[in-house]
Amino acid sequence: MSMSGLPFDDFRVLLRELPGPDTRALVAARERDQQLTKPAGSLGRLEEIAYWLAAWTGRPPAVNRPLVAIFAGNHGVAKHGITPYPPSVTQQMVENFAAGGAAINQICATYDLGLKIFDLALDYPTGDITCEPALSERDCAATMAFGMEAIAGGTDLLCIGEMGIGNTTIAAAINLALYGGDAEDWVGPGTGSQGELLARKIAAVKAAVAFHKDHLSDPLEVLRRLGGREIAAMAGAILACRVEKIPVLIDGYVATAAAAILKAANPTALDHCLIGHVSGEPGHLKAIEKLGKTPLLALGMRLGEGTGAALAAGIVKAAAACHSGMATFSQAGVTTSGEPHRH
Amino acid sequence: MSMSGLPFDDFRVLLRELPGPDTRALVAARERDQQLTKPAGSLGRLEEIAYWLAAWTGRPPAVNRPLVAIFAGNHGVAKHGITPYPPSVTQQMVENFAAGGAAINQICATYDLGLKIFDLALDYPTGDITCEPALSERDCAATMAFGMEAIAGGTDLLCIGEMGIGNTTIAAAINLALYGGDAEDWVGPGTGSQGELLARKIAAVKAAVAFHKDHLSDPLEVLRRLGGREIAAMAGAILACRVEKIPVLIDGYVATAAAAILKAANPTALDHCLIGHVSGEPGHLKAIEKLGKTPLLALGMRLGEGTGAALAAGIVKAAAACHSGMATFSQAGVTTSGEPHRH
Repeated sequence: MSMSGLPFDDFRVLLRELPGPDTRALVAARERDQQLTKPAGSLGRLEEIAYWLAAWTGRPPAVNRPLVAIFAGNHGVAKHGITPYPPSVTQQMVENFAAGGAAINQICATYDLGLKIFDLALDYPTGDITCEPALSERDCAATMAFGMEAIAGGTDLLCIGEMGIGNTTIAAAINLALYGGDAEDWVGPGTGSQGELLARKIAAVKAAVAFHKDHLSDPLEVLRRLGGREIAAMAGAILACRVEKIPVLIDGYVATAAAAILKAANPTALDHCLIGHVSGEPGHLKAIEKLGKTPLLALGMRLGEGTGAALAAGIVKAAAACHSGMATFSQAGVTTSGEPHRH
Repeated sequence: MSMSGLPFDDFRVLLRELPGPDTRALVAARERDQQLTKPAGSLGRLEEIAYWLAAWTGRPPAVNRPLVAIFAGNHGVAKHGITPYPPSVTQQMVENFAAGGAAINQICATYDLGLKIFDLALDYPTGDITCEPALSERDCAATMAFGMEAIAGGTDLLCIGEMGIGNTTIAAAINLALYGGDAEDWVGPGTGSQGELLARKIAAVKAAVAFHKDHLSDPLEVLRRLGGREIAAMAGAILACRVEKIPVLIDGYVATAAAAILKAANPTALDHCLIGHVSGEPGHLKAIEKLGKTPLLALGMRLGEGTGAALAAGIVKAAAACHSGMATFSQAGVTTSGEPHRH
């Protein structure tokens, strides 16, 4: 992607000209489904998932190279004492991912998902959003472009997740900027902020949105002013998947906020995405509803790391396997409803 | 199991003397969880699943030999024209399972689950419950014993499912007998009964419960009078798992009705069971609530075959993997909340 003109210009064009679904592949999947050895509709959301895979890959439903991408960033706002963990934990957890010791490693091993970790300048936290933009336009665009390139290694199902001490504060600020309401509607405990930590978190979100209030009508400005590097990279990755015909599973509260930026810029921007799970973070369900989505799973998780999306990838793999692997009534010699089957 | 006295006697004794959870294994799992590299509680239900595995296996959480067991039966009540599929489809689907062409085969392949099919005298449907008991006490007890033995091959997580044209009618009759209400509360479309088929299904359930009404205070009598062979076998299998320290995932509306028989006989009888999913069958959620359970998944499926339980087994495998495979804070050198970590 060229970087002529203002850094955001290419993204604005891209967001206006998003490719649509592949109708031919969608129709073919629906036709095959009707012939499979089960009552029509009886696989419920698994059938919808198969159609979604077809529509957004342009091929028969299949998941052969699923990938979890975790983007990690640090945040200037963390200095306000809003979380029980110090920012150094972001780097420590990146090392834990590399060593195979985190929850996401175990889930990836369980479902045979690839895993890639992208740490984004962890030693250089973004600006303190309560009194300055998180990123310059140039930095924000470059980080989005990095996110776009991150998936270039090839996958046919991307699970998008993150790690970043302080980033549920960032996500709450983005949601407040995009959707309004009170800060309390969008701020939750995150990794475990309670009492004074939670009060400071709410205050920081209020201060941030108040400070930037005259610049929040443009979703990309919301991203650069209130976001963080992992948020910008996730937004870029989701966008690139649309162009490259890769369906996306979005993880928790923070990844959903990254997706929300794109939806605010173009209402169709998340049609190639499903929400993997609704987390235990109190504002997540409302944020998902703002996107017009229904999460696949509801297990009360609130860890991030892509763990909810990765669990959902297990469901998506099963959906694709059912669609592609089941026998038809004719192949199996099973009587269809209504009339006797004839070989 | 000896068959002295009346055939149900041994089951009545067994149901009175069910083993409880392994408190030591449960406490050990809780202690390990507190040390894993994640905020406390952040894996939500995955943590509860790990504790449940520990409590009911008596070992650290692990799923090494998961098994899906499908019990298939035919039902005299099907002659009333209550379903769009003829009873011959039960046998045809059993052959489809054997050939690997059904939905459950694909899900088992996706999650590396074993699969065993038990067809129960498919050429001899049970009695027509609208005017006679489904089974004699001797036949019912023998089928329960068969179900108990069915798991003897060894597994450490049993997913229990079924196949049987007409068996959502059977399940509705059991629920009506156990819980009361109107037949309409418990009868749904099943494989696709609508219009006149649905009206006949409701009428059959009403007629069955009215015919047997003086004999329904004993749960085992409910089972033999209104049940079917696959229901009795599932009840036996669930019971055997309790004795053999095997946790159980229950599938859909019909498997839940089999479980309900045991719960009615002993309120603690399903403590080693989770409900894999809530199906699209309208009465299923209410039936699950009667058991005091919360389903793991809600994907609008209504196929049976153990498919919902098998999908849930994917979640349970991930929960066990997280618990057993994650690094501790100490191992990973990750700072815990509150105080700096020291190597």
